[in-house]
Amino acid sequence: MHILVTNDDGVTAPGLLALAQGMARFGEVSVLAPDHDWSGGGHVKTLRRPLRVRRVRMADGSSALTSDGAPSDCVALGLMGLLPHKVDLVVSGINPAANLGHDVTYSGTVTAVMESIIWGVPGIAVSLDGGDVDSYELDYQPAVEIVTQVVATVLTHGLPKGVFLNVNVPNLPLSSIKGVLTTSQGLRVYRDRLDRRVDPRGRDYYWIGGDRPTGVPREGTDVGALAAGYASVTPLRLDLTDHKQLEAMQDWRWQPHLAFSETPVFSKNGH
Amino acid sequence: MHILVTNDDGVTAPGLLALAQGMARFGEVSVLAPDHDWSGGGHVKTLRRPLRVRRVRMADGSSALTSDGAPSDCVALGLMGLLPHKVDLVVSGINPAANLGHDVTYSGTVTAVMESIIWGVPGIAVSLDGGDVDSYELDYQPAVEIVTQVVATVLTHGLPKGVFLNVNVPNLPLSSIKGVLTTSQGLRVYRDRLDRRVDPRGRDYYWIGGDRPTGVPREGTDVGALAAGYASVTPLRLDLTDHKQLEAMQDWRWQPHLAFSETPVFSKNGH
Repeated sequence: MHILVTNDDGVTAPGLLALAQGMARFGEVSVLAPDHDWSGGGHVKTLRRPLRVRRVRMADGSSALTSDGAPSDCVALGLMGLLPHKVDLVVSGINPAANLGHDVTYSGTVTAVMESIIWGVPGIAVSLDGGDVDSYELDYQPAVEIVTQVVATVLTHGLPKGVFLNVNVPNLPLSSIKGVLTTSQGLRVYRDRLDRRVDPRGRDYYWIGGDRPTGVPREGTDVGALAAGYASVTPLRLDLTDHKQLEAMQDWRWQPHLAFSETPVFSKNGH
Repeated sequence: MHILVTNDDGVTAPGLLALAQGMARFGEVSVLAPDHDWSGGGHVKTLRRPLRVRRVRMADGSSALTSDGAPSDCVALGLMGLLPHKVDLVVSGINPAANLGHDVTYSGTVTAVMESIIWGVPGIAVSLDGGDVDSYELDYQPAVEIVTQVVATVLTHGLPKGVFLNVNVPNLPLSSIKGVLTTSQGLRVYRDRLDRRVDPRGRDYYWIGGDRPTGVPREGTDVGALAAGYASVTPLRLDLTDHKQLEAMQDWRWQPHLAFSETPVFSKNGH
């Protein structure tokens, strides 16, 4: 098996090395990760500039590739043929902060895996709920053990086309983690505030400031699992359709009337 | 009503001006848009650098704000208090290319609206299926008329919290557009290819090259509606949970066993 390991914190991040070492038990590992931190960078496809790729050594002396593209660009480059062998699985992380609830569309860790799904390759994103702890002070081994379990389980059951997994692990010793729960995507509560400052030349600039996000710790959700001391595994897909609303909108009559080519067709059922 | 209009092509884009003028019939319009093109830039939250905001004039002499942040940053800035009045609706576009199927997590046009939803403000993304036509050559008026219908209809029916709309309009005169269909998110078919080149100093660089995406024109989807000459309105939400897979995973036993604190809890039902 050939696993592509990437992240959104950059190729020097300790969570990347821990993950790459952990994945080596399953087969060949290729690391292709950004050359700088892309946290909160979203699902990017870089089309307006070319991308560079360099070979570097990680802290344990092993070889890795690094690119000036986003995490999703790194995955695209790898799957488009930059890596000589076919990739069977993409694993992204280990992010030093949780990616729960609405974090998933912002998260470089998760959007790297969205890219692998678009290329038809299964993917798993892994995050450690490190809170305010410096990323170099965190113990990534509990998360490595849990993602190892998840990968082993996925190899047994398989994943349907289009499904990817978002794994979050509490920042606890393995013996204190209560287990792994399969969860739905929960609700984040962001607490961002505008922080207006004045530069030395008298001009305003703005930080997106405020406090760390919290969440609604509902049972059955990723937020709830972490709050209760469990790791969470959330199956996601790239279909954002709200089917309940789609149903409700069958009765909508688009207004005001305009000069369409035929009798206006306002919904599938006709109105 | 106070409408925040933004886009991902930048404050000078003709589609932005057309949209801002169109929205003026509903009330006060504030424009806050990026100072450069962010197409394919994803759902960004810029936390590692501060953001600048400048006041500029658009081509019709009207006043606008522009920021060096992503489209989603522009929305966050506006809703965090940079704009003096409470915003009732965010409308993003008019993008000069369609945003169909899997495009939604990449698209700055759509992710701007994801940000408004996170802040609890309804949002509508609008894209014109311009294909290879230069953005300054496109006629945005049919899309303006259709998004006007959509806004008027939304004002009648309301939108549940968390639902946003992704509107796509074929590049046809209004009289040739067959109507508006409510659709689900369809399937894009990307045709990206690695384009390796050598710079004047003998070093490799890589473009994400290839052909424009196509899609699977299934009836009932956004791709299918556009292919048949209709405008599409797709209700989306930020919950990516795959509930079918969540159900299937209730039977999974995470393996191999590890030293958890209690009898391992492998799923909500216990195994």
